[in-house]
Amino acid sequence: MRNRIRELGITVGSFPTGKRNMITDVPGVQVGNVTLKEDLPNEECIRTGVTAILPHTGNVFQDKVPAASFVLNGFGKTTGLIQVEELGVIESPIMLTNTFNVGTVLQGTHNYILENNSDIGDQTGSLNVVVGECNDMYLNSVKKVPIREEHARKAITNASSEVEEGAVGAGTGMMCYQYKGGVGTASRLVRDNYTIGVLVVSNFGRREEFEWGHYQPTKMNDEEVPDGSIMMVVATDAPVTDRQLKRIAKRAPVGLARTGSRVHHGSGDIVIAFTNGYTIPHNVKGEYQAKQVHIRDDSKIMNELFQGVAEATEEAILNSLTKAETTSGRKGRVLEGIPYDSFKAFTD
Amino acid sequence: MRNRIRELGITVGSFPTGKRNMITDVPGVQVGNVTLKEDLPNEECIRTGVTAILPHTGNVFQDKVPAASFVLNGFGKTTGLIQVEELGVIESPIMLTNTFNVGTVLQGTHNYILENNSDIGDQTGSLNVVVGECNDMYLNSVKKVPIREEHARKAITNASSEVEEGAVGAGTGMMCYQYKGGVGTASRLVRDNYTIGVLVVSNFGRREEFEWGHYQPTKMNDEEVPDGSIMMVVATDAPVTDRQLKRIAKRAPVGLARTGSRVHHGSGDIVIAFTNGYTIPHNVKGEYQAKQVHIRDDSKIMNELFQGVAEATEEAILNSLTKAETTSGRKGRVLEGIPYDSFKAFTD
Amino acid sequence: MRNRIRELGITVGSFPTGKRNMITDVPGVQVGNVTLKEDLPNEECIRTGVTAILPHTGNVFQDKVPAASFVLNGFGKTTGLIQVEELGVIESPIMLTNTFNVGTVLQGTHNYILENNSDIGDQTGSLNVVVGECNDMYLNSVKKVPIREEHARKAITNASSEVEEGAVGAGTGMMCYQYKGGVGTASRLVRDNYTIGVLVVSNFGRREEFEWGHYQPTKMNDEEVPDGSIMMVVATDAPVTDRQLKRIAKRAPVGLARTGSRVHHGSGDIVIAFTNGYTIPHNVKGEYQAKQVHIRDDSKIMNELFQGVAEATEEAILNSLTKAETTSGRKGRVLEGIPYDSFKAFTD
Amino acid sequence: MRNRIRELGITVGSFPTGKRNMITDVPGVQVGNVTLKEDLPNEECIRTGVTAILPHTGNVFQDKVPAASFVLNGFGKTTGLIQVEELGVIESPIMLTNTFNVGTVLQGTHNYILENNSDIGDQTGSLNVVVGECNDMYLNSVKKVPIREEHARKAITNASSEVEEGAVGAGTGMMCYQYKGGVGTASRLVRDNYTIGVLVVSNFGRREEFEWGHYQPTKMNDEEVPDGSIMMVVATDAPVTDRQLKRIAKRAPVGLARTGSRVHHGSGDIVIAFTNGYTIPHNVKGEYQAKQVHIRDDSKIMNELFQGVAEATEEAILNSLTKAETTSGRKGRVLEGIPYDSFKAFTD
Repeated sequence: MRNRIRELGITVGSFPTGKRNMITDVPGVQVGNVTLKEDLPNEECIRTGVTAILPHTGNVFQDKVPAASFVLNGFGKTTGLIQVEELGVIESPIMLTNTFNVGTVLQGTHNYILENNSDIGDQTGSLNVVVGECNDMYLNSVKKVPIREEHARKAITNASSEVEEGAVGAGTGMMCYQYKGGVGTASRLVRDNYTIGVLVVSNFGRREEFEWGHYQPTKMNDEEVPDGSIMMVVATDAPVTDRQLKRIAKRAPVGLARTGSRVHHGSGDIVIAFTNGYTIPHNVKGEYQAKQVHIRDDSKIMNELFQGVAEATEEAILNSLTKAETTSGRKGRVLEGIPYDSFKAFTD
Repeated sequence: MRNRIRELGITVGSFPTGKRNMITDVPGVQVGNVTLKEDLPNEECIRTGVTAILPHTGNVFQDKVPAASFVLNGFGKTTGLIQVEELGVIESPIMLTNTFNVGTVLQGTHNYILENNSDIGDQTGSLNVVVGECNDMYLNSVKKVPIREEHARKAITNASSEVEEGAVGAGTGMMCYQYKGGVGTASRLVRDNYTIGVLVVSNFGRREEFEWGHYQPTKMNDEEVPDGSIMMVVATDAPVTDRQLKRIAKRAPVGLARTGSRVHHGSGDIVIAFTNGYTIPHNVKGEYQAKQVHIRDDSKIMNELFQGVAEATEEAILNSLTKAETTSGRKGRVLEGIPYDSFKAFTD
Repeated sequence: MRNRIRELGITVGSFPTGKRNMITDVPGVQVGNVTLKEDLPNEECIRTGVTAILPHTGNVFQDKVPAASFVLNGFGKTTGLIQVEELGVIESPIMLTNTFNVGTVLQGTHNYILENNSDIGDQTGSLNVVVGECNDMYLNSVKKVPIREEHARKAITNASSEVEEGAVGAGTGMMCYQYKGGVGTASRLVRDNYTIGVLVVSNFGRREEFEWGHYQPTKMNDEEVPDGSIMMVVATDAPVTDRQLKRIAKRAPVGLARTGSRVHHGSGDIVIAFTNGYTIPHNVKGEYQAKQVHIRDDSKIMNELFQGVAEATEEAILNSLTKAETTSGRKGRVLEGIPYDSFKAFTD
Repeated sequence: MRNRIRELGITVGSFPTGKRNMITDVPGVQVGNVTLKEDLPNEECIRTGVTAILPHTGNVFQDKVPAASFVLNGFGKTTGLIQVEELGVIESPIMLTNTFNVGTVLQGTHNYILENNSDIGDQTGSLNVVVGECNDMYLNSVKKVPIREEHARKAITNASSEVEEGAVGAGTGMMCYQYKGGVGTASRLVRDNYTIGVLVVSNFGRREEFEWGHYQPTKMNDEEVPDGSIMMVVATDAPVTDRQLKRIAKRAPVGLARTGSRVHHGSGDIVIAFTNGYTIPHNVKGEYQAKQVHIRDDSKIMNELFQGVAEATEEAILNSLTKAETTSGRKGRVLEGIPYDSFKAFTD
């Protein structure tokens, strides 16, 4: 059982964390994982999964959450962001998986929501599903495309407020700074009692980039290591608008950069941000939204949300490393869980 | 057997058309359809399909085409555009289908390409598949999600240079200006012997918007008619850059507007443009692209491509209407093929 | 004294106009012009000016208006849009002028606002001024850069609810479809008593593009005619958000396209949209905005605003043509006011 | 005479620097400053200036440089980026100044180029000038708007390959991390002998954000300190496209983030990137560009440019701090040059 970064005596940033120091500190947010691990003949291995982030405990299609995204580097296959940009809402769980199974997870999530909203496709129009991905092909035999539609459903129904981290769910086969990466999460509290939380699937970088650690010459064959990616999902309960969520999303890479990433060409570095501080109902009579209080752009809360998302992103990445167990995979490869003495200089 | 708009004696714009007046006049471009039609109990009907546009006759993953997109209205679920924006290339056939089966078509296309490129997911990274959609739920029982992965494959392997129009492929169940819509195509020749072609799947608008026709009060229950969408795919062989393709893509809506569309809230109006005038190889030794001639932004060719795409888009939409046969669908609904005397004023 | 398009018996679109059929039908919006006309030696002529659009009758810096922009073709030098995109507000009059004097009009407007808001640059930060432009060099000796800072101020202080059209203000030297163009305006009423108004400065196109008129072979030397531009300013009092204003802005080109424009390479085709239905105060105590009612994206009002902006843009362009007097300029050039019998087919 | 960061024994990143470790290591790039310092009655002070970056030693209007920009936070008034985005070129020197004089610097630069290109505004169209800014109002009496058009010209004619840093030119009055900031520059060499250089005007942040330094409680009245901004100008001679320059521009904030910035609400954080590895001629006969070699997106050079721009940006910011002298300003304010022992922990 591996530790979170704070259990190693290291504090990131200056803001207080939420109770769990997880994205689920934002009330109503839940996370579910499905992990697929199987050893196949000929050094093929299944090391992959699905992670579902539920924006609130209700029906997200019926009560949509204001949302935005920011693409730092677009070598990625995330779906659903066109409509998020146009309408400023997310209406599905945010699904994370491996690059080669985006279609199946998209369809599985779509069909699951359809079953639970019988009006869609009959009296009401359509459904926009957000699926993000990283490429776990270093350990995982992606060409087996083993994920089925039911895995998407199960990730959703598995969701709870306790988040597993490391080599689980979408993070099962991921690699970060050439150590074992995967799911990591953290949260911050800002003034007026708002929470901002981040969940990442980390799958990027080389050891020599990692600024927190000590450089260790890698034994990996560089040619075999793809550039990787990182998905960053940001949740808050602060009553911000979709435009303000884009501003918040643009600050998550501040935390990414502080861990050392150089944002390689082949990396899909994508941020998706939402608030559940208020929702936009799907079906209403009338032409108007309910009146809603919003934070001012020039308020201190906004600058604190900016700082909070940077801190939580940085810590979520570190947690994805310190929580991930050493994991073997295809072609006899092994990714080491990051040694804790990498952080020694910071705790002495 | 219905007619194309020119067969009704109507000319759109002033530029000459290609030989077929189809997107396939761009050398190498091919189009394939799979059409699903089935009557089910309880007034349920399958009226849907898949259309595949192949950018050239080779392996598009190995020889990528420069590409760009423009989202006029983002109420749409098109996949793959994040990476197109970042890298300026398309590396898959462009797939069109209904809104409720994007995931399956994405996965089916993905797996098909995987089978034909054994290096993907092993020695080389990942694959970005572009899937566009419109919502055919007026006629089609979308909740049956009847499309299977093999339909995506079959649309690709069906591809040829002769394009079926109207109620076929992805256009099978679509509705345009409250008449039967679907697939339509057209092309233009510009100076220096370049061709620009457009293929649309038309699924938007109300009768009173249609500027070419005579207004006829609709008998449809307005509440049942979703806002619809239009996918516009633009192909050329002119040696333009991805940035210039975005400029070209932004002119396709000029043709759309001239037919009368008001670009409703619920309409996914999306343009995808590519050139096969040169390609970007996936695997090369070395750090540099082959030298390539490019058109100047201030050249007359560029302004002619702008005019050509507007003209071809307008004519493709008209062809999607005049070619589409009257079609019945779920709930006993019938969409009429547009009456030819709608155009009478223009031919007298 | 020339006529507006409706005075020629032609109706554009189906929605009712506001009382004046001007952007100033949006309560509080005012427009002011400064016109510079002078004949200089050696066939040099000053034919230029400034047009100021005041979003409301108060202090726009202290009470900012929600705003957005859309760049159809970015061959343009409009200032201030970066901050409009980030913060979703405009805090200055919207100034229009010729391409070669943007700096002076920017500085003149800036200094004028500074004088009227003594806190800026002392207790409070900075000021973002929006200046749009078209290139009037066909008639105007732009190299004389004759506009002074006081002309910007005077355009602002000249503002009233009665809008002069044609060859006045920023429109003094402009050319549209190779006829005399300039300032034009129109408005539409939509449900719930909202108004949407448009003001354009038209400076684009060639005669053969003009779909409303009869083609007349031009006698102009094509090489001398730059591609031109169009600035489209949209005002409404509907309580929409900045994101929704971007959606509205993207429909103005629908009206542009319907007049025949092919959106040439060298044309800066830019839309700026704002609402004064509510304002964002600059100085407030506290961290929150006042609660505000907003229109739903899926409301009928939104689709009517989309139709309204398309209709008003089309009519504003036509008014800019039919109101503009024949005007002489540098090098002995003359731009003819569009002959009214160009529209004869539409009124018979 | 203050020191550069390397003179304090501190190395940033791992790549070698160019000969001068300045943006002018990119062959042909030159930088010129005009510094305005004057003490006025009533504790008013002029502490401002202009910095001009010349992309090459020729006529930039006649030989344009491929360019792109990235807006991290758009609380800024930079001009010219709309056309840079559309056409992918810069055709003027890149001018930097204070927020309140953007108009004058824009017009002055415009007129200077006009004088040197007599065809503009006569035979050929228009001119797009890029002016960036930060707000130096903490020390500078911005309301005096003291910059004149001739200062813009003089900054251009002052340009040379030796760059002054610290409290000079546009950096004269700027504040960084609540120490004296201003102009800073650095460069990196990447494979195939390409250089990438960065020049910043730093004007952002609070002391407690600065990760390199030791926190020192500030004595400043927080209410008086605006959020500030940073302009980051990136130059290279690598033959990259405008799309690739946008990718490079998006990595400059990696360097910014590593110094500690949290990218406040009121900060205009803007990157402008160009290459002079090849140019786009203004006047050519014919419709085509000269053939040009381009770097592949997946080449190692590209990833090295990404790393290089991050390293150079970080070091340029540090240089802007370590080179800036303690400076007094309006209201009796004094900004201290950063104490060198802030970096002590890094050199022991």
